[in-house]
Amino acid sequence: MPRDGSATRTTIMNAAEALIFERGFAGAPIDAIIGRAEITKGTFFHHFASKQDLARSLIDRWALADAQQLENKMTRAERLARDPLQQLLLFVGFFVEQAEELVEPEPGCLFGAYCYQAGLFDERTMQVVEDAMRLWRDRLRAKLDEVYAARPPRLETDLDSLADGITVLFEGSFIVSRMLNEPDLVAGQLRHYRNYLELLFDTE
Amino acid sequence: MPRDGSATRTTIMNAAEALIFERGFAGAPIDAIIGRAEITKGTFFHHFASKQDLARSLIDRWALADAQQLENKMTRAERLARDPLQQLLLFVGFFVEQAEELVEPEPGCLFGAYCYQAGLFDERTMQVVEDAMRLWRDRLRAKLDEVYAARPPRLETDLDSLADGITVLFEGSFIVSRMLNEPDLVAGQLRHYRNYLELLFDTE
Repeated sequence: MPRDGSATRTTIMNAAEALIFERGFAGAPIDAIIGRAEITKGTFFHHFASKQDLARSLIDRWALADAQQLENKMTRAERLARDPLQQLLLFVGFFVEQAEELVEPEPGCLFGAYCYQAGLFDERTMQVVEDAMRLWRDRLRAKLDEVYAARPPRLETDLDSLADGITVLFEGSFIVSRMLNEPDLVAGQLRHYRNYLELLFDTE
Repeated sequence: MPRDGSATRTTIMNAAEALIFERGFAGAPIDAIIGRAEITKGTFFHHFASKQDLARSLIDRWALADAQQLENKMTRAERLARDPLQQLLLFVGFFVEQAEELVEPEPGCLFGAYCYQAGLFDERTMQVVEDAMRLWRDRLRAKLDEVYAARPPRLETDLDSLADGITVLFEGSFIVSRMLNEPDLVAGQLRHYRNYLELLFDTE
């Protein structure tokens, strides 16, 4: 365990995140967070200046992991295949593999949780959510442009909207999967997204 | 205005719903609700026994409107076309028409908002959300069975999962549309869902 207190910081953040997914941000007061993290109030304020500071740290951590997932899976797909469509199908396939391993529904996406309580957060915090969604749009859109240049789709298609489809899918399927208590729902939706890309572009 | 107090009840519910979409349920205390509704605390408790009672009334109202939308649009599609696939494409098309009229993003879906604060609500309240999602699955699945019987899909497809796709789409696109402040995002996603159905089943 590192001695610089980063383990304690992570414990606090994990406790807060779990509480936010259960009860929302306003429903997770500092007392509840320190209770779950099994720390004192002094320790909390040693790591975070305020609950807003904690909220920002949580969304920064989530957005960083999210961007790394996007980049790692896309880079891996680009190494494994030459054709842009195959790269895109692999990219989605890696998420399918990951989703197939879920034995319990994901508690959700912090972007969705923050969206439904946007009035509690400052502008900078909500900007992180917007930037993350635009990052996915831009990265997927660039790949879709390559796909499109090689083979026109069977039906007229808006490429930004098609790129957004995977963000929409994750946000929506986390909610439905949790409400129906069906962990395999996310993988099922991803397979449809992959099928759609195949049907649209794989016209050979 | 009706004299039985139902207008006041509706005013309270609308104020509470708007606050929940902004700040979450725990972030919307009764004082804030009566402030926005411009009523007294006495009036509030004349209409609702507790905040939990209000939460239940809100989700019941939302689920009822949701079920009516499903049924009205499906019945209309069934009257306007004979072929099951055409009925399904019309059904989605009616939602596209409706979404195209949005000039501001929808604040969200109450099912999604409640999901992200599920720990604040009693079981009966959360059951309403689950039942609503199952209703869409069952109604769409029955229609997809008719489509499937008439024409096998181009790719192997799980029909329950395909039926869930529209619920996933609404939940996800309300979030992304709000975060990116793009009201036309919902219609764009619905068009992709319609395209997918067409590409899967319209093999003539």
